[in-house]
Amino acid sequence: MSVRTVSIAINGATGRMGTTNHLQRALLAIRREGGLALANGDRLVPEPIILGRSVEKLRSLAQSLGIERWSTDLDTALSDPKVDIFFDCSATGGRAVLARRAIAAGKHLYLEKPTAETLEDALAIARAAAKAGLKNGVIQDKVHLPGPRKLALVRDSGFLGELLAARLEFGWWVFDGTLQPCQRPSWNYRRAEGGGLVLDMFQHWRYMIDRLLGEMRAISCRTATLTPRRVDERGNSYGVDVEDAAYATIELQSGAIVEVSSSWCTRVRRDDLMTLQVDGTTGSALAGLHRCWTQSLANTPKPFFNPDEPQSMRFHEQWSEVPDNLPHQNPFRACWESFLRHWAEDAPFVSTLLEGAKGVQLADAAYRSEKERRWIDLAQLSV
Amino acid sequence: MSVRTVSIAINGATGRMGTTNHLQRALLAIRREGGLALANGDRLVPEPIILGRSVEKLRSLAQSLGIERWSTDLDTALSDPKVDIFFDCSATGGRAVLARRAIAAGKHLYLEKPTAETLEDALAIARAAAKAGLKNGVIQDKVHLPGPRKLALVRDSGFLGELLAARLEFGWWVFDGTLQPCQRPSWNYRRAEGGGLVLDMFQHWRYMIDRLLGEMRAISCRTATLTPRRVDERGNSYGVDVEDAAYATIELQSGAIVEVSSSWCTRVRRDDLMTLQVDGTTGSALAGLHRCWTQSLANTPKPFFNPDEPQSMRFHEQWSEVPDNLPHQNPFRACWESFLRHWAEDAPFVSTLLEGAKGVQLADAAYRSEKERRWIDLAQLSV
Amino acid sequence: MSVRTVSIAINGATGRMGTTNHLQRALLAIRREGGLALANGDRLVPEPIILGRSVEKLRSLAQSLGIERWSTDLDTALSDPKVDIFFDCSATGGRAVLARRAIAAGKHLYLEKPTAETLEDALAIARAAAKAGLKNGVIQDKVHLPGPRKLALVRDSGFLGELLAARLEFGWWVFDGTLQPCQRPSWNYRRAEGGGLVLDMFQHWRYMIDRLLGEMRAISCRTATLTPRRVDERGNSYGVDVEDAAYATIELQSGAIVEVSSSWCTRVRRDDLMTLQVDGTTGSALAGLHRCWTQSLANTPKPFFNPDEPQSMRFHEQWSEVPDNLPHQNPFRACWESFLRHWAEDAPFVSTLLEGAKGVQLADAAYRSEKERRWIDLAQLSV
Amino acid sequence: MSVRTVSIAINGATGRMGTTNHLQRALLAIRREGGLALANGDRLVPEPIILGRSVEKLRSLAQSLGIERWSTDLDTALSDPKVDIFFDCSATGGRAVLARRAIAAGKHLYLEKPTAETLEDALAIARAAAKAGLKNGVIQDKVHLPGPRKLALVRDSGFLGELLAARLEFGWWVFDGTLQPCQRPSWNYRRAEGGGLVLDMFQHWRYMIDRLLGEMRAISCRTATLTPRRVDERGNSYGVDVEDAAYATIELQSGAIVEVSSSWCTRVRRDDLMTLQVDGTTGSALAGLHRCWTQSLANTPKPFFNPDEPQSMRFHEQWSEVPDNLPHQNPFRACWESFLRHWAEDAPFVSTLLEGAKGVQLADAAYRSEKERRWIDLAQLSV
Repeated sequence: MSVRTVSIAINGATGRMGTTNHLQRALLAIRREGGLALANGDRLVPEPIILGRSVEKLRSLAQSLGIERWSTDLDTALSDPKVDIFFDCSATGGRAVLARRAIAAGKHLYLEKPTAETLEDALAIARAAAKAGLKNGVIQDKVHLPGPRKLALVRDSGFLGELLAARLEFGWWVFDGTLQPCQRPSWNYRRAEGGGLVLDMFQHWRYMIDRLLGEMRAISCRTATLTPRRVDERGNSYGVDVEDAAYATIELQSGAIVEVSSSWCTRVRRDDLMTLQVDGTTGSALAGLHRCWTQSLANTPKPFFNPDEPQSMRFHEQWSEVPDNLPHQNPFRACWESFLRHWAEDAPFVSTLLEGAKGVQLADAAYRSEKERRWIDLAQLSV
Repeated sequence: MSVRTVSIAINGATGRMGTTNHLQRALLAIRREGGLALANGDRLVPEPIILGRSVEKLRSLAQSLGIERWSTDLDTALSDPKVDIFFDCSATGGRAVLARRAIAAGKHLYLEKPTAETLEDALAIARAAAKAGLKNGVIQDKVHLPGPRKLALVRDSGFLGELLAARLEFGWWVFDGTLQPCQRPSWNYRRAEGGGLVLDMFQHWRYMIDRLLGEMRAISCRTATLTPRRVDERGNSYGVDVEDAAYATIELQSGAIVEVSSSWCTRVRRDDLMTLQVDGTTGSALAGLHRCWTQSLANTPKPFFNPDEPQSMRFHEQWSEVPDNLPHQNPFRACWESFLRHWAEDAPFVSTLLEGAKGVQLADAAYRSEKERRWIDLAQLSV
Repeated sequence: MSVRTVSIAINGATGRMGTTNHLQRALLAIRREGGLALANGDRLVPEPIILGRSVEKLRSLAQSLGIERWSTDLDTALSDPKVDIFFDCSATGGRAVLARRAIAAGKHLYLEKPTAETLEDALAIARAAAKAGLKNGVIQDKVHLPGPRKLALVRDSGFLGELLAARLEFGWWVFDGTLQPCQRPSWNYRRAEGGGLVLDMFQHWRYMIDRLLGEMRAISCRTATLTPRRVDERGNSYGVDVEDAAYATIELQSGAIVEVSSSWCTRVRRDDLMTLQVDGTTGSALAGLHRCWTQSLANTPKPFFNPDEPQSMRFHEQWSEVPDNLPHQNPFRACWESFLRHWAEDAPFVSTLLEGAKGVQLADAAYRSEKERRWIDLAQLSV
Repeated sequence: MSVRTVSIAINGATGRMGTTNHLQRALLAIRREGGLALANGDRLVPEPIILGRSVEKLRSLAQSLGIERWSTDLDTALSDPKVDIFFDCSATGGRAVLARRAIAAGKHLYLEKPTAETLEDALAIARAAAKAGLKNGVIQDKVHLPGPRKLALVRDSGFLGELLAARLEFGWWVFDGTLQPCQRPSWNYRRAEGGGLVLDMFQHWRYMIDRLLGEMRAISCRTATLTPRRVDERGNSYGVDVEDAAYATIELQSGAIVEVSSSWCTRVRRDDLMTLQVDGTTGSALAGLHRCWTQSLANTPKPFFNPDEPQSMRFHEQWSEVPDNLPHQNPFRACWESFLRHWAEDAPFVSTLLEGAKGVQLADAAYRSEKERRWIDLAQLSV
């Protein structure tokens, strides 16, 4: 057994996502445990270099997490031959430009989603990275949550039979900031700062549905701004100029239909903050973020509607829970382990920048569908 | 107090709906209790004359229910000056023709839905009846169920504030007849016999949404035939040539969005066979067919998503049930009482044939939306 | 629609089984409802003639049930050309002899199990009936119980995958008559009167396992007389000279193993008086006499054994119940309807006398296995 | 009170069983509490010397557990006069050879099961140890679990009356490693590595049944390989060449019958992972691993089977739980305390190497029964 290191420049490390998920729960957790065990028995130890704009924040973060290298000079980091991978989790705005610079510097490339603001840019960087022979990827964390993993296990066990239709419901009530503080940052509700529910969440819906249910073919989407005014972090009222709800119908290549409801203005009466119900010929499953329940064809009830008597069946009790057999792994760590194995030993890897471009494509099509009031086909993309 | 009678010719009385709902649970129940109490204290006693094609069935039904008059001769019934109201709950196919004959004979007119097979016909009979000064109406039973009534009470109390969005989910698993019998008649799955989920159910969705949430403006709808083969009552396999699922997004005049999922191929994991969740600025409500639950702004939780821990909130437990304070009334009887008061004492009446035409309009628009893959506007109708 | 009659001579009608199950719950129930509806719409009305040895009992029974014909003279009944079917549910002892007489008289033949006391006799009457072109059958009621029917539905839905193994547990505590009366007749515990658990119950296990799980290939069986003395109906103590418990292992043609425990001396700690658990590659099911539960591969838990802590899983709660979707039918009536359709319109029929002979074969093999202390192969039988 | 020490050489201490059960939960736990209190008030403190083949593993284990002596040199340990007892919990393969060397060196001898690979070897070492006047024993932990201890208490109280029959059910679903990892090590499913359910578990069934119910006389056993392919720890598919299920019928000297079902391919619908139901003339008991329930003759219900109504009795509720009156003791610690008292003060001791040989005998007979398709008698063994 030998120990190798991988040097990773992390841009945007001082943000909440960068610090908590990518550093603490993923890269530093791997490091603490002596590195990632590779197929040949070697251990791969990540060495993060954190990049950003604020000297103060970087120094403080590096100190508190025990990270040796930090810098505000991106160019120097990119020109350092010891840096293996460039990772960006800073604001979406400049991501494509940064990606091009990293590719030009010959760095392998890992990005948060969305990988670019336009489909054109997202495809361009996916193609440039592929052409340059660089390993590349996008964070796709939600499929690594226990609920979707259980759903995949149910599907792979053959339980569902042929897929008929599915419904994804997502969201909860985000306070407007008047009676009590708004629990999400105000930039999520401002166009100029990269806000908008579709831009944010449809990246996730693309890979979740593609990978759990099958490739998408077309989308019809209706968006709405249900809460037109909110109060920001400083107590100032502002106008919301992005959608805070979206109602989509998606057609898969298989012909199956998936309804997708996403809203920051709904009160939750379902099993979890996100639920995905899948109906198949021989069984159905409903996955939340962590739990999953099933009902087989043979266990399917025959309910009766009597206008004069309340329903006697308790429908939730007729489902059976999928047990917690698989060990839990933090989803961001799972993403990183997968990408690092891909980098170190060329292990198979799904979440490439082409997949990242597909996420951007879906959000783009959703906005066009809203505008043109019709179905939009999703062209097949390739590098 | 004086007792009056109202003579009602019922065409299609020997069908299940006619016998059980319109005769037994409605007209005969009113009769048994001494008639309907009018505003002035008089009692109005319905006298049904049952019409149909089978002498045997009519005689048997009349005998078992204690009905004195029955006939296979529609013309004679319509020309009988003692007959006040003509009601049709026979097969949809000939309804518009029958309605025109009844109008021509000067009979007041009450119809099951859909009131015609085409929007043109539905509007024509609505206009003809209005022009002739005849009382006219369509059965709209679902708003009289306890769940929708409680929802209306919640709305009227001001609890919801301004309506934001709503979602209606309807349906259950209808077996295909191979492992166990299909629990719905096969004509529901055959075009030539008037089948199709949209044609059947969208009549209901039109008046329920119009009356509970506000007038509709436009619809986008995707239909699917998820179970392409079924086994009929005689054990023969047949091809389903109508949709058995429909996924619609509806825009109201107010701008609010209503999602409507209807499927005969879904396994139920919700509170009832039909549920309607309504989100408003100051509160939300979810109504089933009989029960209804609410959550106010002040009771709205602030859930947190932690990828590493299952959700600790039990969302269903955070809602509060609307009690059964209102006396239950059979929905079909409620329809009849409303129409009979309209006939007898000119009481205000909502469910006119114009409203029936709106139901036909919605189904028509849904089918066009599916075909043209775009949103379809719903023109304002008038007599 | 026309009405036909079928004349059935019932020997042994005054016994409990004959009166309650075959007459009241089956033939007379069909009669009361206007006969059995055949495929062509005709109704087939059974006309029972009850036969026995006691004039008094026959007269009394005929009177109380409203049966017109009864007789103590079997020969006359068999020679009556109007009698279509001969049915015997009297004591097992003389059944084969009676069957031969009925065949000689050209009567179609329906028998309670066991169809004979020896395999030789059982095969001989099966062959004679087949050769004579007579419709013939044996009562096989247990597969018509709701539990086994649900299990068949689960199996047919593909839920179980490939069958691995199964376990049938049957029996309960039959008091010995000292502290409280024995709840089963004493002849069950006496060899000379046709007693013995194997002779009685293995007839059922043969067709249930053959039809639900697959054809048998071999058996190993251990019997025991656990309660050697009992007190009979008159308060006299007697020695039990037959087995009151049997522990069998059965190999199917598919190689799957079925354990079968049957005992009149066990206290019940299971879901029902008879339970059949079936384990398959993709799911398991456990059927009682009426209810049935399932667990799929994806829902299968991963339990852990900790010597220092009690088991935290509640295993029964991890199974899901199969709902009561199918209408209940009395099992004996189901047998009769099946045989009558076979007689009247040549409908497919499984429970022929050859199947009856297989039941006798299994009991015979079980006794031989006990005696020779080894596995006994079950030869394939044919008429 | 004086304190004595006992020096114990432990071969195989670095394995999971050796580390967790024998060291941590037993010997080191006794040590931490100041030694085992003997009958005369003295305290006996175990001093473990750990033996093995890997210097690295031994050093690491010794350090983490605070053990002073470790060695890779078995001969030196055996020739050390200060070593009192030799204990082996390494792989089964070399156990008999090691045992002979320990006996030759005059060490008292304690072994994990199976004590040898063949009955001949197992008997030979039992006899050699006895002839040399050495204390000797085999680990028999399962009778020290709370469930079997409660069952013994029930039996000793006279509750059961005369034993009639018993049924032991053991096992759960062990995943095959495709959809989710196999939760047992792959060597359990490979002949060459000492795998096989019978070889592993029938050691336990021998002493449990012998001690709880009475000495065995004969066995009939059917084995099966229900899951023929599994995926190992490294992700490689392999063929299973041992049985993963066994269905045995065992006859006791008393004539009572015990059914024993063991399977790694069954889904659990019983009270615990292992259950043992015992039916006696005046009562029955069912013991799991930790809990135990009883039903007395006077509490025995008289259930009724009605084909037309589901069973109304809830059989599990008719049993009464045996309370947790006895203090819990770790089963391995209980074994060690018993053996140490036997060594230190010649206390009576049941689990000698002769008993270990009986376990090997039962597994051997089970395999022969499968091969010869007949009952195999178990000869009485003696030293």
